[in-house]
Formats: sequence, structure tokens, C-alpha cells
Amino acid sequence: MDADSDANGFDPYGKPSRFESKVVREPRPPTAANGLGSIRTPLHLLNGTITPNGLHFVRLHSGVPDIDPDKHKLLIHGLLERPLIFTLDTLARYPMESRIYFLECGGNSQTLYQKNPIKAGVQRIHGQICSSDWTGVRLSTLLEEAGVKTNAKWVVAEGADASGMARSVPLSKIMDDALIALYQNGERLRPENGYPMRLFLPGYQGNANVKFVRRIKVTEGPTHTRDETSRYSILRADGKTLQFYLQMDAKSVITHPAPEHKLQGPGLYKISGLAWSGRGRGIVRKVEVSADGGKSWAEAAFQSQVLPKALVRFQMPWRWDSGPAVLQSRCTDDTGYVQWTRAAMIAERGLTGNYMPNCITSWAVNEKGELNHVYA
Amino acid sequence: MDADSDANGFDPYGKPSRFESKVVREPRPPTAANGLGSIRTPLHLLNGTITPNGLHFVRLHSGVPDIDPDKHKLLIHGLLERPLIFTLDTLARYPMESRIYFLECGGNSQTLYQKNPIKAGVQRIHGQICSSDWTGVRLSTLLEEAGVKTNAKWVVAEGADASGMARSVPLSKIMDDALIALYQNGERLRPENGYPMRLFLPGYQGNANVKFVRRIKVTEGPTHTRDETSRYSILRADGKTLQFYLQMDAKSVITHPAPEHKLQGPGLYKISGLAWSGRGRGIVRKVEVSADGGKSWAEAAFQSQVLPKALVRFQMPWRWDSGPAVLQSRCTDDTGYVQWTRAAMIAERGLTGNYMPNCITSWAVNEKGELNHVYA
Repeated sequence: MDADSDANGFDPYGKPSRFESKVVREPRPPTAANGLGSIRTPLHLLNGTITPNGLHFVRLHSGVPDIDPDKHKLLIHGLLERPLIFTLDTLARYPMESRIYFLECGGNSQTLYQKNPIKAGVQRIHGQICSSDWTGVRLSTLLEEAGVKTNAKWVVAEGADASGMARSVPLSKIMDDALIALYQNGERLRPENGYPMRLFLPGYQGNANVKFVRRIKVTEGPTHTRDETSRYSILRADGKTLQFYLQMDAKSVITHPAPEHKLQGPGLYKISGLAWSGRGRGIVRKVEVSADGGKSWAEAAFQSQVLPKALVRFQMPWRWDSGPAVLQSRCTDDTGYVQWTRAAMIAERGLTGNYMPNCITSWAVNEKGELNHVYA
Repeated sequence: MDADSDANGFDPYGKPSRFESKVVREPRPPTAANGLGSIRTPLHLLNGTITPNGLHFVRLHSGVPDIDPDKHKLLIHGLLERPLIFTLDTLARYPMESRIYFLECGGNSQTLYQKNPIKAGVQRIHGQICSSDWTGVRLSTLLEEAGVKTNAKWVVAEGADASGMARSVPLSKIMDDALIALYQNGERLRPENGYPMRLFLPGYQGNANVKFVRRIKVTEGPTHTRDETSRYSILRADGKTLQFYLQMDAKSVITHPAPEHKLQGPGLYKISGLAWSGRGRGIVRKVEVSADGGKSWAEAAFQSQVLPKALVRFQMPWRWDSGPAVLQSRCTDDTGYVQWTRAAMIAERGLTGNYMPNCITSWAVNEKGELNHVYA
């Protein structure tokens, strides 16, 4: 055994095999530092549907605050009968909810808006979609205790990071299924994912799931914070802006094979990938796969259980004859929404959309067995 | 930020907050070394239902082999039309299955067979029950390709550890839902949990889920290996031995509050814990909680979804009046099986049972708010 790799299997907190040292997150931009930028999940090296906490994507706008959990407080105020303050100790006494939910950055796959396909793989392009078992207290429980006034229609949630990152969320969503999340995959949130608590909005864009949350203010309308005006609004081709478009529409991506892989000669392969939807109940109804750039489709099998607003893994056998092919996947959710083509998305949103591109991704296979990101 | 604690939130492989340094596994015996013994999960500090890989319990009989995954092979032979050998590369081409399943050591909670209750908490007594998203290839898929002969009724699975740990399993179980597991919570198995592959038998005692699996031999009857005769058989009070009793019967344990905690004055608390069953379909139907040592019971709410052969988290509000109390939980599964009392278990199995004690656990609360393990 590698001298420092473990204590004969009895490490107090274990780590992966020394043979898995390439299974790591990748910063974007490569020079990302000082907590500005993102670090992305190696989806091409993972399987199943849960993301290990050490590999969960991270998007930071102003670094990771070093919060002593015993000193952190959550203030709930605004259009309430009585403002309330909660600590971790008091929150522990409330009923909790544990659910497996996906979390996707609103800027995930952003380069699909670029005019030409970037030469990159699934980690760089799509590595900001993950799934975890999230545990916390329903925010509705806390707001009901505080007494919501009748004119309340929105909340604004603010983080305890250096910039006080803040986002507006409709009260209806908050009352429906929002959590003050305290645990991720069984343990306390990781610092970079919002320790010691974050707002969790199942199926909504990552940025609105405010990390290090310290304040929830109940309001009549949206607050139009910097983080939802200068960013995280979708500028469409017609010059109008989609504001507060928070739900992640149905999407899927093939993770195996992807540009990070190379096919080793003709033969039987397996196409595998992830699908998800934040629309409606968030149920993935079917995933179709094409190997000819969308001319023909076949329905994939589900490898995992289908849970609401969680990642679903699909798979399909595929025989490669060593000729060129274009692999695509297309997700349909139970609202009937079908993941759109890139052409349809660009026609509506233009090349300036920037956020939440949920169109079909294409991986072209050449006769050498190499895969490349293309528009098809 | 702690100088070495992270790269501004952009660690290639992240780790918990520096404020969570006490959330670690605990070896048992404390001197466990050289891969003999166990290391146990801090259930009293976790929540939700997924166990982070770094905190998964480990039971080792002969250390962790340092296996190069590119050199590891799985041989399937015995009563088959054609023996087959698989590598990680070939297995990757087969359909896979991802499911959330619990895994419990057959020796978990073993001290409940002792005449007097040990002075310990939930980590030491029960810290060998965990739950993960397991991904692998159905062993039935591989055996069907190999062609199972009609007289085949059992298999014996052998690990690549120093002692070649081996267990017999009925073929019916293997064909029902056994996996050759390759991924745990999205990433490759950890070395101490069987890297690069292990047999996974949903709902069956941990030891039979042979780690580092290198060989599956299909046989007419059980092989009676050392690991299932000198160990992992239940010696009953009547002198008979329960052999090949592999399914984990319905069980539950209160993790909060537990002896590791102390109540801070009278008031509203929450009782929370884990329940599971390996019987039948492995569905937990209800969990009841008592605060008076089993005289009266009330049904707890489920905090998590109920998935087959997975951990379920239950919760119940509880008002402590600062008087003495005895907290218990009792699981009923959908076969109608009800978790038994310790007295009933000892009457049947005696004090020499050693394995798979799934009886009710009792935590006594004294007037100082301290909790102690008792028999009640």
C-alpha cells in the first residue's frame, strides 16, 4: 500500500484508491482562484447517480467564507407576523426532509451558445450538474411559525459570503418544497457548497440555491438584486430578457462515450448518460438516443430509479462499425416537454442567451474512434 | 481560511469543513491495525440516508490488497457451459444497474448479545450500517452468458485479499438481484470497501458481499468455507447453529439523541433514527417509537423516501420533561415482520448468538439529560 494512502484501510476519513488520482474536479477558467469561477465534475469518470461530495461542482462569486457553525444565524423577516432567528441547534429540533435532488448551475453548458462548438468534453462543457441526498428543514415550516402576511409574494435570500450574494424567489416555490439544507449525502455541507446552511430549491438553477444563507426576507415583489440583473437572466434573440426563469428544463447528456474517451476498435459499446428535469414534478419520462445525429432515435433503458427532480442514468447498447457517427440524447419529462435541438434554442434565444442552455449535445465519432463536440 | 484546508473552495477533491474534524470513523478494537477489525460510522453526527464514502464502515479480515484495476480479473466458472473471465473494460460494456441499498456487517450491534449492556453509544454499538448508491453489472447477466447448468444451486465467491475470503450464496439470490459492484456513490469503490469490484447482495449480511471479488464458482451445494463455519453462523440457545442465515431482518436504531449526546434542559426535542430490512422486498412499512421503554408506542414519520433494501430515516417530535425516560424504536417491514425485543432474541439465540442481532435498542435518559445504553 502507498505509505501515506491509508491506515491499512482504517483511515478516520477515507479517500479514493491511488489508482483513481485522475478522478478530480477541473477549474474553469484554469486560473480560477480567489473564489471566482467554477470547478467541474468529471462526469466521464463517474457512474450511478449520486455525486461524491468531494467531486461536486462548485461555482463561487466571492470566495468561501470561513463560518463557525456555532456562531452562524439565519434571520427570517419582512412581511411576517414575527421575525425569527435560527441557529443550527434550534433548526435541529424541527422536522427535516431528506431527498435526492439534482443541482445544476444556471451557467452549465454555457458554451453551447457560442457560434462554434468548443473543443472540449463533458467535464468542461457539462460538469456543473450533480445529484445528492439533501437534508434540511422545510422553509415553509419556519415561515408558517413566523406567520406570513397576506401581501407576501416573494422572498429574497442572502448569503454570508463577502458579497452577500442574493436572489429573489417566488413565495409559491418556497412554500412548495424549499429547504434550508444542512446535510449533503449524510454529512454537513461542504464549505464550498454552502456550509453551514444553504437555501435549496429543487429543480431550480444553482445560483438561486443561495449558499451560506443568513437572511430570508419576505417581500411583495422580486428585489432585482445585482445577481439576478447583471447575471442569471437570459437575453433572447428578440432583445427581450427572460428574468426569474428559474426552473431547469428537461435536459440530458451522454457521459460515456464522450470526447474524453476513445473507442478501441469496432464492436459492442454502451452509451450511458444522465437526464433530469426541473419542470412540473421533475419526472423524467423517457430518454431517446441517436447515433446518426438525430435522424433516428431509440428509447434508452433506465439504469437507476426515477426519482423526482433527481438525476436519472440511462443506457443503451451500441455497436460501432468503425464508421462516422453522431451521438445524441434527448430527454422528455412527464409534462410532455421535449429537450430541444441547439438550432431551435438559438433561434429563440440567439447567441447571447448565456444561461440555462438545455439543448441536445452532439458527440461526433470519427473513424479513429475519437469523439468530438460538434453542432449537428 | 485555514491555510491548507482548501484551494479557495477549488480543491480537485474536496473535504469537509475544518469545524467538522470530529466527524470521523472510530476503530474497534481501538488498536485495530494491519487490516484486522473494523472502523465504524459516526451515525450520531450524520443525517439523511446516504453515507459519504469516507465515513462508510469497514470490516477487514486480512487487510486491503493494493490492486491495480487494469490487472484485476473476475473468473466465473464451475457448473457453467463455458467459464468466462472479465476485466473492468469488458464489464463496462454490459448493462448496469444503480440502486440505493443498505449494507450492514453481520457482526453489527454484536454486543447486544452480552449479558450486560456495554457503556457505549450508537457509533460503537451500531456503526456498521450504511447506505450508498451502488452501481454494477447484474451477476445474472454474466451467468446467463456463461450458461448455467441445471444442477447448479449455489455459488461460492472468493476475494483477492491475502486470505482469499470466501462465502457461499444460493444461486436463487444471485439470479434475483446480485451485482458485481464497481461504483459506490458515483465513484469507484474505495480500497477498503472492495476496490475494484465486490459482490453486492442487497439486504444480505455484509461479509457475504465479498470484496475484491476475483472468482465466482457455481456449485451444487454450499462450500462450507472457513469464513462461514468458524464465523458468521449463529449459535442458538438450543445448541443448534443457524447456517447461511444471510438476510438482515428488520431493524432500527435511534441515532439522535444517543449516548454521545446530552439533552440541554427540558423542552422540545426530535427523535431521529434509521430503519431497514433485508426481508422480502426490503420495504420498511412503519417505525414506532417509545419513550417509556416499550410500554406505549407511537408511529414515527418518514423523513426520507422509502426505497427497497435502503435505509429509511424516521423522526418524531418529543417533549422531554426532565424526568427519566427510555427511548426505543421498532421497525415493521412489509412482510409483517416486527423487530423483536432483546429478551425475545436472547430467549431464542442465547448469549452466544454473536451475529445479526436485530433486536430493539434502548437508550435511557436520566434527569441530567445524559443518555445511556440499557437493556429494557
